[in-house]
Amino acid sequence: MSETIETDVVIVGAGPVGLFAVFELGLLDVRCHLIDILDKPGGQCAELYPEKPIYDIPGFPIITGQGLTDNLLAQIKPFSPTFHLGEMVVSLERLEDGRFRVQTDAETVFLTKVIVIAAGGGSFQPKRPPVPGIEAFEGRSVFYSVRKMDAFRDHDILIVGGGDSALDWTLNLQPIARSVTLMHRRDAFRAAPDSVNKMRALAEEGKLNLVFGQVTGLKGGDGLIEAVEIIDNDDKTHHLPATRLLPFFGLTMKLGPIADWGLNLHENLITVDTEKFQTSEPGIFSIGDINWYPGKLKLILSGFHEAALMAQAASRIVFPDKKVLFQYTTSSTSLQKKLGVA
Amino acid sequence: MSETIETDVVIVGAGPVGLFAVFELGLLDVRCHLIDILDKPGGQCAELYPEKPIYDIPGFPIITGQGLTDNLLAQIKPFSPTFHLGEMVVSLERLEDGRFRVQTDAETVFLTKVIVIAAGGGSFQPKRPPVPGIEAFEGRSVFYSVRKMDAFRDHDILIVGGGDSALDWTLNLQPIARSVTLMHRRDAFRAAPDSVNKMRALAEEGKLNLVFGQVTGLKGGDGLIEAVEIIDNDDKTHHLPATRLLPFFGLTMKLGPIADWGLNLHENLITVDTEKFQTSEPGIFSIGDINWYPGKLKLILSGFHEAALMAQAASRIVFPDKKVLFQYTTSSTSLQKKLGVA
Repeated sequence: MSETIETDVVIVGAGPVGLFAVFELGLLDVRCHLIDILDKPGGQCAELYPEKPIYDIPGFPIITGQGLTDNLLAQIKPFSPTFHLGEMVVSLERLEDGRFRVQTDAETVFLTKVIVIAAGGGSFQPKRPPVPGIEAFEGRSVFYSVRKMDAFRDHDILIVGGGDSALDWTLNLQPIARSVTLMHRRDAFRAAPDSVNKMRALAEEGKLNLVFGQVTGLKGGDGLIEAVEIIDNDDKTHHLPATRLLPFFGLTMKLGPIADWGLNLHENLITVDTEKFQTSEPGIFSIGDINWYPGKLKLILSGFHEAALMAQAASRIVFPDKKVLFQYTTSSTSLQKKLGVA
Repeated sequence: MSETIETDVVIVGAGPVGLFAVFELGLLDVRCHLIDILDKPGGQCAELYPEKPIYDIPGFPIITGQGLTDNLLAQIKPFSPTFHLGEMVVSLERLEDGRFRVQTDAETVFLTKVIVIAAGGGSFQPKRPPVPGIEAFEGRSVFYSVRKMDAFRDHDILIVGGGDSALDWTLNLQPIARSVTLMHRRDAFRAAPDSVNKMRALAEEGKLNLVFGQVTGLKGGDGLIEAVEIIDNDDKTHHLPATRLLPFFGLTMKLGPIADWGLNLHENLITVDTEKFQTSEPGIFSIGDINWYPGKLKLILSGFHEAALMAQAASRIVFPDKKVLFQYTTSSTSLQKKLGVA
């Protein structure tokens, strides 16, 4: 059953720039919903380098990706945005009344006056391993994430990878699977040492099959695998019986469905003007790393600036009859009331 | 004797945007000198609202003007910029070799490849009281600041105003003056209570003349005043003997000499492009509140963005043969070395 949400603005992407857009729009009384494919706000900052220091955010000689995310979440708290996490926009159409209908893969439906694409490098998508014919099995017996654990119950599962995702799912699925095999290229794991120790203990107890090698082919039909062909580190080929394959080869970034929205693009980036950061489609704005204009630098601080100018233009669409007063948070009691400090 | 300094970039204005420009230029190995008319870095932030909270700097739910200034000074520390404070640029000319010659009122001379105007609302200049003919006395017997106390020794001084400057100079000059009169419109002072108490004590002891009213005219000739015509709060006119007048009516912002540099202006702001934030004069850039382009908002965060894009273009002028690599502080060891963290 699909839920329909009416709002002023849908922000696609809850990275730092999407988060700060909530602030700039909130100062102008514009309500926002944010959609992000990741399961938490912060985008790349929180997903790829939560602990890594960033040095070029103005006013912070040093801050981590997670620290910046946390600060931005505190800054937008007065505007109580609604987050739709772990969802991806799959369709977008303009309605006759000028609004947009946006739908996610979780079947959430939005009716919105403005769309702000703040999707950074695009959607995070799992990297597909280089195995011939793997596409035919995807979504039926080959999965890149575990949405429902129960779909793996009583299966012979082959998990491939050496990072946290591979190890975490090995440990989580082992109790409910018929069998679990963890395969990695070599006997060295990037995952948290504690997970690696637990995994090795299970292998020693014979509750887990630990092998080293690479997937070279899949056997089966009608989307269902029966066995996986692997090559070990002595170049010998084996066949491992398996009914579920979970490759964890990391994430890559793709423009994804946004590429199909008919917006003008420049080398896979969305072309915008520098006055409003509006795309070729009125009412659709784009800010942050995903946009392009002459001089564009993919800096978080540029996305912040773009959010501020976008907000002025977006508020004129949301409130066509209201005169937008440009005010400063330092001196405007009305802005300070919105922020809950006056 | 004038000092001549050769440098890559002269930044006019050491407010937050001028300070952050040092950071962005420093990452690209460009050396900077900053000039500011104020006696400390931070511009309006530090001068007008050091303790006032700002809410719209991304990543800071709340920060004071002084706090932001201090953070920016820490952030640019690795690039050791040179500050020339309490100085105003009075002349600018392009040399035959393409560089600029910049001179300040302290006779500091710069030879520089690039000029960045980050002068905020312009120069802080004292407000002139509405007294007919006052211009003729300015700099000879009427002063808006005290540069050398000795120039006031043994004079009959009339100080006008009710704020900190008026009270501080009343207290500081009283011991060396022949006589001091403090005049304010009414018996209510904005200055620090301690200064007001000290002033009242001097008045009670008869060491200071405290009057309420307004200046309406000046008597004297050849730039030297002899008496000041005042109107008291009962609308009666008096003549106060005085040989020095110090009106403290606050500060106003003026574009100042920048208006004479031949740059294209838009309503007293400097027109720039949005790719490089360059003015109509190649090699002269303008960032922050003093520039204008379609969509411009006078936000500190916009100035930060402008500084980043300006730096790319400026570095190409400074190093015409070097390929500028765009790198991230998060991942580039070479940038981290410049910042002293790798």
